[in-house]
Amino acid sequence: MRSEPVLALDAGANSRAYLPWAGTLDLRSGALWPASHVVTCRLSDMAGRYADRAAEAELLASSDPLIYRADEVVAPETEGELHTSVTVLYPGKVGDEYFMSKGHYQVDPHCVKVYLAITGSGYLLMQNGQGETMDVAMTPGTIAYCAAGWAQRTVNVGNEPFAYFKYWPAHGGHDYDRVVDEGGFLKRVVERDGRPRIIRATDI
Amino acid sequence: MRSEPVLALDAGANSRAYLPWAGTLDLRSGALWPASHVVTCRLSDMAGRYADRAAEAELLASSDPLIYRADEVVAPETEGELHTSVTVLYPGKVGDEYFMSKGHYQVDPHCVKVYLAITGSGYLLMQNGQGETMDVAMTPGTIAYCAAGWAQRTVNVGNEPFAYFKYWPAHGGHDYDRVVDEGGFLKRVVERDGRPRIIRATDI
Repeated sequence: MRSEPVLALDAGANSRAYLPWAGTLDLRSGALWPASHVVTCRLSDMAGRYADRAAEAELLASSDPLIYRADEVVAPETEGELHTSVTVLYPGKVGDEYFMSKGHYQVDPHCVKVYLAITGSGYLLMQNGQGETMDVAMTPGTIAYCAAGWAQRTVNVGNEPFAYFKYWPAHGGHDYDRVVDEGGFLKRVVERDGRPRIIRATDI
Repeated sequence: MRSEPVLALDAGANSRAYLPWAGTLDLRSGALWPASHVVTCRLSDMAGRYADRAAEAELLASSDPLIYRADEVVAPETEGELHTSVTVLYPGKVGDEYFMSKGHYQVDPHCVKVYLAITGSGYLLMQNGQGETMDVAMTPGTIAYCAAGWAQRTVNVGNEPFAYFKYWPAHGGHDYDRVVDEGGFLKRVVERDGRPRIIRATDI
């Protein structure tokens, strides 16, 4: 997973005083402009997350597909500031499991993250460390508030890019390991009889 | 200005554990559903903010118009949580000055506020305490990041409702008095020759 600056003048993470800024979010496509950073995540960046290891290995050997890309306006990582981002999660599957984000907790257990779907269709899978889960079907206009202390993962179940706007406290951080250490996400979204179905990970 | 709960089960401000939630933001109209609270602001709630006191008095005597309404999902007011809200700022004028929000600083000088225009057209006027200003023309999809320590006010310059989504750290608070104590907003948006014009408040 890579985060690369795309503006010579970044949005302020390194600047002395962070000033107001304005940009455009295309409410039909989800395109965000300008962004200060572009994050890319390929299959190789999330090794071991998909259930079908043989299908994963095959894809890695051939193309190592881009799973998602996020255009972000990065704020100073201090309390009171907010990151702004649009993720485009591409359509596809690894075996019968739909393309999904890497999935993470926030480092700071008091910090939330909010998702607003702009185009395409998918799911937001959430779980806390006590085995509780919540799944939200996301279509354009769906807004989902991932509460503090909950892990989150998005899944694209459509045939087109699933784009969503998201924002979160800039000091919240990303912890991609904890959910793996806990045994991974409790749910998976797979194709069954040509349609997406949410199953328990133990039922695969 | 009134904030009234509209859900028997509110979004969690009074609950023991704040859980994830999902709702819908209509990306064409800006309607947010469900909301936990509805905030209303009439002209009488912002007495003295418009330049033309005679026009204000006349309106107050006749109708005391509703200037804006906000549908909100109120979060616990602790660090790491975020409030979610859609404001509908109605079209109209007091004298030649367009309907606008009351205008405020955050109480916490480290907290930002972010605006995303959904429908209609307007301006976001910002200023810090040192006399610097920034004006952002807002049309659907415009996103404006009001930096920490900056006051903010929206203005509707169109003939239809100006609706915008907004979010901010839930512990940030609203201080409506400080900008008044500082002499008020440095800019005003008025109709001149049938079109909106931003002028310095001292030029009125």
